[in-house]
Amino acid sequence: MQRQHDDCICDTLITADVLVTQDEHRRILEDAALAVRDGRILALGSRRDLAVFTAAERLDLGNALVMPGLVNAHTHVAMTFLRGVADDIPLMDWLNRHIFPREQRLTAEIVELGALLGCAEMTRTGTTAFADMYLIEDAVAKAVDLSGLRCLMGEVLFSFSSPAYAGVEEAIALVREQERRYRDHPRLKVAVMPHAVYTTTPEILVRCGELARELGAPLYLHLAETESETEACLSAHGKRPLAYCADLGLLGACTTIAHAVTLNEKELDLLARSKTCVAHNPKSNMKLASGVAPIAGMLARGILPGLGTDGPASNNSLNMFAEMSVCSLLHKVCGGDPTLCPAGTVLDMATLGSARALSWPELGRLCPGAPADLIALDLSSPNLLPLYEPISHLVYAASGQEVTLTMVGGRTLYRDGRYTCLDYPLLRKEALKLKRWVCEHA
Amino acid sequence: MQRQHDDCICDTLITADVLVTQDEHRRILEDAALAVRDGRILALGSRRDLAVFTAAERLDLGNALVMPGLVNAHTHVAMTFLRGVADDIPLMDWLNRHIFPREQRLTAEIVELGALLGCAEMTRTGTTAFADMYLIEDAVAKAVDLSGLRCLMGEVLFSFSSPAYAGVEEAIALVREQERRYRDHPRLKVAVMPHAVYTTTPEILVRCGELARELGAPLYLHLAETESETEACLSAHGKRPLAYCADLGLLGACTTIAHAVTLNEKELDLLARSKTCVAHNPKSNMKLASGVAPIAGMLARGILPGLGTDGPASNNSLNMFAEMSVCSLLHKVCGGDPTLCPAGTVLDMATLGSARALSWPELGRLCPGAPADLIALDLSSPNLLPLYEPISHLVYAASGQEVTLTMVGGRTLYRDGRYTCLDYPLLRKEALKLKRWVCEHA
Repeated sequence: MQRQHDDCICDTLITADVLVTQDEHRRILEDAALAVRDGRILALGSRRDLAVFTAAERLDLGNALVMPGLVNAHTHVAMTFLRGVADDIPLMDWLNRHIFPREQRLTAEIVELGALLGCAEMTRTGTTAFADMYLIEDAVAKAVDLSGLRCLMGEVLFSFSSPAYAGVEEAIALVREQERRYRDHPRLKVAVMPHAVYTTTPEILVRCGELARELGAPLYLHLAETESETEACLSAHGKRPLAYCADLGLLGACTTIAHAVTLNEKELDLLARSKTCVAHNPKSNMKLASGVAPIAGMLARGILPGLGTDGPASNNSLNMFAEMSVCSLLHKVCGGDPTLCPAGTVLDMATLGSARALSWPELGRLCPGAPADLIALDLSSPNLLPLYEPISHLVYAASGQEVTLTMVGGRTLYRDGRYTCLDYPLLRKEALKLKRWVCEHA
Repeated sequence: MQRQHDDCICDTLITADVLVTQDEHRRILEDAALAVRDGRILALGSRRDLAVFTAAERLDLGNALVMPGLVNAHTHVAMTFLRGVADDIPLMDWLNRHIFPREQRLTAEIVELGALLGCAEMTRTGTTAFADMYLIEDAVAKAVDLSGLRCLMGEVLFSFSSPAYAGVEEAIALVREQERRYRDHPRLKVAVMPHAVYTTTPEILVRCGELARELGAPLYLHLAETESETEACLSAHGKRPLAYCADLGLLGACTTIAHAVTLNEKELDLLARSKTCVAHNPKSNMKLASGVAPIAGMLARGILPGLGTDGPASNNSLNMFAEMSVCSLLHKVCGGDPTLCPAGTVLDMATLGSARALSWPELGRLCPGAPADLIALDLSSPNLLPLYEPISHLVYAASGQEVTLTMVGGRTLYRDGRYTCLDYPLLRKEALKLKRWVCEHA
């Protein structure tokens, strides 16, 4: 290989036994190397191919697997502050008795601290980007900025007031302001995020669609999560949720719907025709007994959904490895077919599918020019031995705690037990504040 | 508290922030201590209560949670050698093309090495006892003995030959010999383990029942795993599998059936009346698309099933924390009720229920007199913060990799990344042999 000399200078050269690229050919390289420059991947190939590179920093990871950072297509990261506070109860009790009363009194400090803890967990378990919808999203942005992760962020929009705004006009002004503030941020993008059909009005949803188009921002909302939501929409608007949104002009390739559980065959056809993106959250749908999203029907129509954890209050984790495993197992048993949702498809969902759901298509793959958002797993962990098929292990055997390196845009956020951006010992202490606040607001 | 001096001398005194006892009152102690003498729990209580104890060794675990070691009610631990070798394919292809051909040519060396790797994984992820059924089970016993874990072991009995025996008479003689050899072993017990209805004859099953009664050993078999098994049993014997076994005199409190997926309401009643034990394997049942066992129906009848991983070739892990989480989530969504299989019940299944399925009732709980089989989890892991309800975190948030201490019968098997009984670096190297053997026998 002949290269110009300055083509062979990089910031970081990473070597590892296995490299899962998720590129268009889904190449898996052995004895591999990857060169990073200016936060992007400059080259990848065999160790020998990249021996010509001169690097300011070398990360020789040895018996490790390097892969794209996982992308969490749907969460409310700050809800980490409510992790495990109320489980095993009916959805309406959970929302009305435990979640909503506390959320109405939320402060920016609680949101930021909850988000920081969630970012620490995602960084630790190999997630490098996520879509987040919450109240006081500016506080989430502050936490994400500090953590070094990437985020498609959105202030949740209701037809009523929230701790972040007094009414709809103020809410829309807040989204405009956030979009202006983060327009040039390399790792934060703003979406327009109305909460759901049942917490907004047709007028608000239409305005959200117009705002998204005006700003060139994605539109993102919860949709078709439960049968009761679907029935309420039918009763209030005479249409099922997807048709209702279609008639309001909301569907399309820049729109993501989270959940998509109650879709029937006709709705799946509409979803495919409109190219609307999906964020599938199997663990949350199971824990809240919401139902099973028709993922096999989506895949059969060429829709690759993204994969998400939903908020840690209904999961109760932000671990995308656990989510991948459960996703595959759930659809196999519910479809009565062990060939459904094979490992490769599920990994595609958690990388490429989620990247699409974030309207951030350059994420979720490792190839020249892509952002250097990557993770490494220690392959010496007993649950990963022996190794026949790397993708099988990533989906069915890994716990996520094997992650030893998390990098976003070429910057190391975590390595071998240490965070570089977060002061984790301090964060642990501050987490006690969360518990105190939650108990005081019971 | 006044005690005789010699009552207050122990081998090991453990202190930790949280102690989950799983005793009859399901006490959870804070700022707790636990004294171990001669491999058993001598006392437990608050740190202050146990300050009078003199200990040869102190384990001050700090911000940790101590609990009973988890009990895996059903596995084929040696199948670790086949982890991930063939996923996402129909059951019969999987068995006939990938599993059975290799198993027919198995050697004691491969079985032992596979079992050692599996024991390393279980030790690492907080399992201290398990039920194991496999071919050449003596090689598994050797591995378990070395690893320090506990096991209810059983040579799998077929109506045809196996690498361990030429025919039924030899197989039964082998079980008798194993029972004699391990009768006085503190950590190994032998069960009579016919494989299943479809791989045995009525005569063999009756002889197995007689042998179990004669030896005072548990009887343990796969039963009612799939609809096709149930239909084949109906067609061959005119009865569904549970009735068939009942009529052969096989049910009872010393019998455990693994899977119990296809049981109807009447069969659940028979199961409850006969006090037959169950080993539930949700992840394997999901991955192979076998179906969903009627766990809610069992619980409603007062049956507490044990929880198991099944073999790592159909899971693909031996991690009981992952199994607990999936168990609860699966039954909530399939039952359409988020209150089903609450965290406390699932932890009961993985401890007390599994102990019952192993016919080893003193396991799965921490109370004076019980074996000191315990584990500790590091509570500083970001996925376990904040901490409101310890049991919620164990079932819904922990990955199993937070385990920092694994102890069986008072002996530390693992602490802070190091195994005391296993030479893990050597084992990793030897694991390469497994891969070579499997690829050569494709």
